[in-house]
Amino acid sequence: MIEGLRWISQPCLPIDAMAADAARRRQDQLTKPRGSLGRLEEIAIRLAGLQGTPTPSPDPVQILLFAADHGVAAEGVSAFPQTVTNQMVRNIAGGGAAISVLARALDARMEITDLGTVEDPGPIPNVRSERIGAGTGNIAREPAMTDEQLAAAMNAGRAATERAVDSGARLLICGEMGIANTTAATALACALLDLPAAALVGPGTGLDEPGVVRKAEVITKALAIHGSSDRTPLDLLARLSGFELAAMVGAFITAAQRGLPVLVDGFIVSASALAAVRMQPEVRDWLLFSHGSAEPGHRRIMAALDADPLLDLGLRLGEASGAAVAVPLLRLACALHQQMATFGEAGVSEV
Amino acid sequence: MIEGLRWISQPCLPIDAMAADAARRRQDQLTKPRGSLGRLEEIAIRLAGLQGTPTPSPDPVQILLFAADHGVAAEGVSAFPQTVTNQMVRNIAGGGAAISVLARALDARMEITDLGTVEDPGPIPNVRSERIGAGTGNIAREPAMTDEQLAAAMNAGRAATERAVDSGARLLICGEMGIANTTAATALACALLDLPAAALVGPGTGLDEPGVVRKAEVITKALAIHGSSDRTPLDLLARLSGFELAAMVGAFITAAQRGLPVLVDGFIVSASALAAVRMQPEVRDWLLFSHGSAEPGHRRIMAALDADPLLDLGLRLGEASGAAVAVPLLRLACALHQQMATFGEAGVSEV
Repeated sequence: MIEGLRWISQPCLPIDAMAADAARRRQDQLTKPRGSLGRLEEIAIRLAGLQGTPTPSPDPVQILLFAADHGVAAEGVSAFPQTVTNQMVRNIAGGGAAISVLARALDARMEITDLGTVEDPGPIPNVRSERIGAGTGNIAREPAMTDEQLAAAMNAGRAATERAVDSGARLLICGEMGIANTTAATALACALLDLPAAALVGPGTGLDEPGVVRKAEVITKALAIHGSSDRTPLDLLARLSGFELAAMVGAFITAAQRGLPVLVDGFIVSASALAAVRMQPEVRDWLLFSHGSAEPGHRRIMAALDADPLLDLGLRLGEASGAAVAVPLLRLACALHQQMATFGEAGVSEV
Repeated sequence: MIEGLRWISQPCLPIDAMAADAARRRQDQLTKPRGSLGRLEEIAIRLAGLQGTPTPSPDPVQILLFAADHGVAAEGVSAFPQTVTNQMVRNIAGGGAAISVLARALDARMEITDLGTVEDPGPIPNVRSERIGAGTGNIAREPAMTDEQLAAAMNAGRAATERAVDSGARLLICGEMGIANTTAATALACALLDLPAAALVGPGTGLDEPGVVRKAEVITKALAIHGSSDRTPLDLLARLSGFELAAMVGAFITAAQRGLPVLVDGFIVSASALAAVRMQPEVRDWLLFSHGSAEPGHRRIMAALDADPLLDLGLRLGEASGAAVAVPLLRLACALHQQMATFGEAGVSEV
């Protein structure tokens, strides 16, 4: 075990089965045909079990946004130049990015952490600087990071989650910003699922067809160097991912250990979720899935996690935008659960 | 043309193509890869065109809920007794039903109208009494309603929509409550689509398999009596639907004529939307579709309307619940459209 990461093997909190059962019984007494609220019933019952309460709620929602750069961008795997990562960090912190608008509209808390973009931007208001390096190594040639960097990244995610729990957050959303990070996420997922690049690769935020072919070649090269199936998930994470991906793995494991439900965003975040579950299978219980990404590899990851995301709106933006858009569904599911009348209260005949 | 329904043939308002184009251009300038907000971009662009403004918004949202009973309930086509319609009207008005909770949580306006339940419940606070009869005729034996009743129902929907427009509503949602109304909606849709009962019939709010077989037989009987393909949509609506279904047809045509966008709920409301479009094809432009119903016939209706609902959460409750749950998506789409920074404003490099 890598120094500083012994906490990974600590147990996750168990789900409160009695609270979930009580919520299920309540759903069956509400003035509607049984099961007729579909997945909204399932959300309320799951959150009741995870939060151990008859009055589940996603609020306060904490969004953790991790930014970092990727050495593999040098292989020309993104439609955008690497300078965009820092530009977008400023835009997110300044309120102009999609996730900034969503967090504001949803009244969600947001914390933004720079884990290592290529150029140190200096202090940016509303951004935590916890830089681990000037981007990762190019996975087509070398490991993404050292064990020390891996530990630093995972511990950054852990610490951010601890802060969220300590401040009373009841739902965790993680998001990412990093040019070329669909390449890293795809490589990581391929290695974890033992699948070739072609099975998962896609256009990311906007590659054309030759670009996708090139990206598949780069991932194939990275898998040939690092993807041996006898490596541990932790080792694969160090070799094939990125600082923000590793931070999210740390966040998810910590959330499950501290009893904080997680609403998982799209493709990239799901790759981190998969890695977390491979390190600690009980983490799976704490994950809800928000949005089916347009990225083709997402379906494979969802199948491996036995997950069926709530939404499918064709989003392919990252920044936790898919998870944010699903927050109102959780709120409405909880409002229905708590505020609907029972058959007895309303004097409505049951079947 | 039936006396009192001459307004059906009045033209719908045209869409503001310039406003839609301007919205499309703005979406392409926002700090995100082009198209990466998927259907949220599409919603903002469509609402901009329908509302004729660069700052579209669904608010204020007006929900119109129409309740009525169905003579065909005598054929044993519902899992619930007919007394439940009035009980649920009281529950909706009293704040305990799913749509009551959703309207409150969404801060949406709601108007509830009794168009004719089997027993006159007398005055109920927050319910308009515009009773057209003590439920409809049993469509397995006779027409659902007379031409005069049809006109009264459609005009009730028209008047409610006029009130909504006059009070400044910017999005219309219609919903229904009426035991046995999936049978009427299925029969109407079968007749409009020239399809047999078996192609569309489903369990409604909770029939078992023998119940569904019985329901299909009843619909087949109704179609044999009323479903001749040379009847007009208006004639089919009188013979095979219900007061609440006809009111919604009136509401949708009026909304399109007055320029009020509509967010269509699930199966039953979609059957009314189909009838409205058959009477006035331009109505289609004013309809957004919220939720893919669990009811199997819904897919057929969506295909006929070339519609792809935003959500698929397994709801089968009615009461406009599927449309209500989609309201936050429209709000977030509009917030993103208005509040995100452009590449120029944020100093972010374009591809």
